[in-house]
Amino acid sequence: MRNDQHPADRRVSRRHLLLGGAAAGLGAAASVGVAAAVTQTGGQSPAAAVDLNGSRTVPFFGVHQAGIETVPQAQVTYLALDLHDSVDAAAVKRMMRILTGDAAQLTQGESALADSEPELALVPARLTVTFGFGPGLVARTAQPAPGWLRPLPAFTVDRLEDAWSGGDLLIQIAADDQLTVAHATRMLLKDTRSFASLRWTQTGFRRAPGSEKPGTTMRNLFGQVDGTVNLMPGSADFEKLVWGSSSPAWLAGGTSLVLRRITMDLDKWDKLDRGGRESAVGRTLAVGAPLTGTKESDEPDFAATTAIGFPVIPEYSHIRRARSEDPGERIFRRGYNYDEPPAGGSVSNSGLLFVSFQADVDAQFVPIQKRLDALDLLNEWITPIGSAVFAIPPGCTSSGYIGDTLI
Amino acid sequence: MRNDQHPADRRVSRRHLLLGGAAAGLGAAASVGVAAAVTQTGGQSPAAAVDLNGSRTVPFFGVHQAGIETVPQAQVTYLALDLHDSVDAAAVKRMMRILTGDAAQLTQGESALADSEPELALVPARLTVTFGFGPGLVARTAQPAPGWLRPLPAFTVDRLEDAWSGGDLLIQIAADDQLTVAHATRMLLKDTRSFASLRWTQTGFRRAPGSEKPGTTMRNLFGQVDGTVNLMPGSADFEKLVWGSSSPAWLAGGTSLVLRRITMDLDKWDKLDRGGRESAVGRTLAVGAPLTGTKESDEPDFAATTAIGFPVIPEYSHIRRARSEDPGERIFRRGYNYDEPPAGGSVSNSGLLFVSFQADVDAQFVPIQKRLDALDLLNEWITPIGSAVFAIPPGCTSSGYIGDTLI
Repeated sequence: MRNDQHPADRRVSRRHLLLGGAAAGLGAAASVGVAAAVTQTGGQSPAAAVDLNGSRTVPFFGVHQAGIETVPQAQVTYLALDLHDSVDAAAVKRMMRILTGDAAQLTQGESALADSEPELALVPARLTVTFGFGPGLVARTAQPAPGWLRPLPAFTVDRLEDAWSGGDLLIQIAADDQLTVAHATRMLLKDTRSFASLRWTQTGFRRAPGSEKPGTTMRNLFGQVDGTVNLMPGSADFEKLVWGSSSPAWLAGGTSLVLRRITMDLDKWDKLDRGGRESAVGRTLAVGAPLTGTKESDEPDFAATTAIGFPVIPEYSHIRRARSEDPGERIFRRGYNYDEPPAGGSVSNSGLLFVSFQADVDAQFVPIQKRLDALDLLNEWITPIGSAVFAIPPGCTSSGYIGDTLI
Repeated sequence: MRNDQHPADRRVSRRHLLLGGAAAGLGAAASVGVAAAVTQTGGQSPAAAVDLNGSRTVPFFGVHQAGIETVPQAQVTYLALDLHDSVDAAAVKRMMRILTGDAAQLTQGESALADSEPELALVPARLTVTFGFGPGLVARTAQPAPGWLRPLPAFTVDRLEDAWSGGDLLIQIAADDQLTVAHATRMLLKDTRSFASLRWTQTGFRRAPGSEKPGTTMRNLFGQVDGTVNLMPGSADFEKLVWGSSSPAWLAGGTSLVLRRITMDLDKWDKLDRGGRESAVGRTLAVGAPLTGTKESDEPDFAATTAIGFPVIPEYSHIRRARSEDPGERIFRRGYNYDEPPAGGSVSNSGLLFVSFQADVDAQFVPIQKRLDALDLLNEWITPIGSAVFAIPPGCTSSGYIGDTLI
């Protein structure tokens, strides 16, 4: 035993040793401060290596918050926090100032104000941090809440769990690198400590950077192409249907976020043959084309029938039920897969973090979900187990903070 | 309510509809089989897009199993399984034949034999699948186990939990893309269903592909450069100290894996200043250089002292305690960070999946861990909460299977 060979070891208090003699013995190395140390990393700094995925940055300040129009990053963590009872509007303002400052730094590959691991901040990897306000946060201010800022109406398919629902403050942290997300998550969570407690964490993923050709629509864990029909950032429709919130005034330039945790019964899905799966969705599994087409981008022909008179795209298929004849009933989807360790005898604990942005939850999201709730073939294999709605305030300038139109 | 607008909806049995009329109405689309459908994906197939990260493959067959010398991928999942009581050597052989076949396919970007989502198999992203045998599996065969194939000796720092320890069969699934890992994990877990139950799952990550310059040593969640001193694949030392197992005979070309789940108390670590942290490790945080040097690759000078006579690299620093004067006491590390949602009032549930490969656990790993257990400054902030040892059998040819030297 080494213990026996070095009896002196056992007489030493480790803590005393470290904070006393040993620390004093560091000499010159101990005097290297955080800032100087970070500068020394040289080639790892974003400016020095612009060709690396890890060096890419997304601007933080702007009319809108980042992380919405941003091409979805590979990794995401959603945090929902509950404000402490004692937190008033002034405290929310202090918290948002701190969070804004650190989010602005971290997204640009710079360490947070009190960053305990500044080297981990040096790989931004397109990090974005997006804040959302729940009803409980807005209620602490003197401003009105939008009418839709409340739990969604109850849907018959829902089996909601508190563990994945609600919250006063949402933080969406997304990047192409999981270590970047982990570090930013920790720094921002520390910022909230005096103000709030963590309600839930949900993590998700898409394909890694460079795994597929840019612009490839993501696949979910059922193997389906998921998100073909979507609003296009920069389009007039996007401006109106995502950024078109004008009431209350503090929300101008903002939008809303709906996050639904949808568990997917992969075991049950496995028992369905390929034709049945394509029927449930209304699209081919191979390329995501509507069953009446050959390419993903083809418009579905809902009127087409087979030789024996059945519709080619079944009446209760997902794409038919999701579609509205009202062009105002559209949303911008930006979801992620989730895959947690299975429990018990199951081989999966997997699903989709359904995330949508829309100017008005009641006018855009709710009608779609009501149609799907009433009859969508996919409901046989999917179950919403979490639900939350947040107001996404506008972006801010470098002298402001997220929420400065509210508080 | 849409329910009221479409009363007919409620009369329809969803399952009947899907499996009956609607499925029959699919026409030509329903006749597209799995194989044909996969072929149709065209540009997504590995051969057609060799420049994408997602298209890269690592050979499965060979003298050694893949996933050891392989440059570590960004994402990993470790599965440990317990064999059912009824499973004898013949059943283990059947299971390993099935697992080998599917692992060989999936790692080359081809779907598993009974792949329920074949499109998810098309992005191999350097997927490797590596199998390890625990004492309980070897005991079901007629062959002897290596002497070190048992739980590690108890260390005083250990606070081991069953939830992260032991297991009869280990599967290491690693790729640069988390969706690839998720799909392979599910396919392989399904293969084991009749033979074993899942004991634990551990997932980890490193920097994403392209985040940093190739060859950059990983950082752990303490911000430390972690893994500087390591055996180099292809070197003579590696051949001897990793692949040098010659007894029992079935292990020739194989090695051993030690997996330790080490929780890192980030909150406590935060309270330590930068000098104290560097003292604990013996390296700078900025570049990972020994405190006596300026570059990560510099050899530490353990004899160097400060002007007042203290050693520059403290006596109980991690790098001094980890190092042996016996060159045979070296291991090959291939660990990952883990970061799970924090519970309660904590802001982190994070740590390291310490993974090492060595020809002989008792001769190589145990002496190092004994020294660290006796006195390593880092023990103030880290705690092993899981521990497992597996024999890694050699690789196989395309007509064999992993484990064919054993059973």
